Amino acid sequence: MYNISRLHPRAESLRSREMLSQSLERGLLVPQGLIAYGRGEAFDYLFGERTIPAARNAIRAAAAQMILADRPVISVNGNVASVAAKGVATLSKITGADVEINLFYRSQERIRKISGVLRDAGIRNVLGVDPAYQKRIPELCSERRRVDSRGIMKADVVVIPLEDGDRTESLRKMGKLVIAVDLNPLSRTSQSASISIVDDIVRVIPHMIDQIRYLNRLTDEEIHHIASSFDNSANLGSVLSYLAHRISRLSTKRQEKS
Amino acid sequence: MYNISRLHPRAESLRSREMLSQSLERGLLVPQGLIAYGRGEAFDYLFGERTIPAARNAIRAAAAQMILADRPVISVNGNVASVAAKGVATLSKITGADVEINLFYRSQERIRKISGVLRDAGIRNVLGVDPAYQKRIPELCSERRRVDSRGIMKADVVVIPLEDGDRTESLRKMGKLVIAVDLNPLSRTSQSASISIVDDIVRVIPHMIDQIRYLNRLTDEEIHHIASSFDNSANLGSVLSYLAHRISRLSTKRQEKS
Repeated sequence: MYNISRLHPRAESLRSREMLSQSLERGLLVPQGLIAYGRGEAFDYLFGERTIPAARNAIRAAAAQMILADRPVISVNGNVASVAAKGVATLSKITGADVEINLFYRSQERIRKISGVLRDAGIRNVLGVDPAYQKRIPELCSERRRVDSRGIMKADVVVIPLEDGDRTESLRKMGKLVIAVDLNPLSRTSQSASISIVDDIVRVIPHMIDQIRYLNRLTDEEIHHIASSFDNSANLGSVLSYLAHRISRLSTKRQEKS
Repeated sequence: MYNISRLHPRAESLRSREMLSQSLERGLLVPQGLIAYGRGEAFDYLFGERTIPAARNAIRAAAAQMILADRPVISVNGNVASVAAKGVATLSKITGADVEINLFYRSQERIRKISGVLRDAGIRNVLGVDPAYQKRIPELCSERRRVDSRGIMKADVVVIPLEDGDRTESLRKMGKLVIAVDLNPLSRTSQSASISIVDDIVRVIPHMIDQIRYLNRLTDEEIHHIASSFDNSANLGSVLSYLAHRISRLSTKRQEKS
């Protein structure tokens, strides 16, 4: 379509945006998904586009909870399917977690297209598709209230990458352990999740897969210890300190240059 | 289209995103414009969704430069036309600035649609449309190099809201005074502009109009003094300090709550 010069200093970033634009054209994404992606990009930029130490701590605790879970479910929306379908398939395979489609901007066509992408990535049983199993979360007003009776409805641990604050709060009230992946440490999602991974989903999934493989070699007691010793509130505090510190340092560097 | 419950705590923000989605459907915006808007949203969120003191300083200096300019031009892209066409029309009227369409993702269809929106907003002579007046900025590789020989090419002051770093650098090299409006204080646009207004364009334009009306009552000497005493590098330093300070404060508040 449009010509992006290879000489452009941000050619790589422009190409990944181009990829998401194509997902939009294919009907997997809604426009609002692109705005959400942009918000993530800005935070990622401020964090230095890398997995910071506090995010690694959260990933380790999340990996432990995924192993200990009886019924883990990974919730997937259009953005996740666009950028991380293969990673979700691997994560589901090694943890036995179900994969469920849950959309804020819900339509049958989007569900059909997203489940196609997930099946192509190797996920055989995609939940959240068959209306016969549709249940509603009573506290929730948005389309996100529609969940699968075999999936999120009876899950004990739910992974919600790139999601919204309302649902996180409702799922917590239902007694579920919620693992959020959100680049905004101040969002209601991050603030109300049980474990808030403040990092880019594309980097999180391989890290989580590595951690699960590593933790699987430890004893149950050791895994329990890792899960229970994680303090999400303190960890979010570290994320914010890191951010404030980094911006402060960038500001000092600028003053030294000028 | 999709149903957004009025009970949703961010209903207003969701509605403004909905507006941009409609611009996309009408062909004014490209998907990348939505991602850029999302990046802005994240920074705006960190600044507390308001015009901070350092932004007010930059707006005042920009207003002075607009008054002192011989040939000011306001450059407009799809995002600006979508959210601020009427404001641009007023700004153009009270300063005598020309309005020129300049697109990174350029197509004749987009130019036609955007110029329609600008004309509807009351701008009679939209530059950057007629190929007969098209010139190229030699240093620039992107589609942004195509400028109007009556507009940006011979302007002394160029206002570039929501733009890209490359073009800011090229215009500076051509000796022009560049006023940027960009919510990312660390972007190449903000770092290389003559005056960097770190604020949301929707809030900036009314502020700038007020400032211009106020400054018009001062003497030329006073206006010159306001323009020449502004130090963009120091002001960007203040923006970054403000940001670091605010995140730090939010982080402390969180720790006190828990």
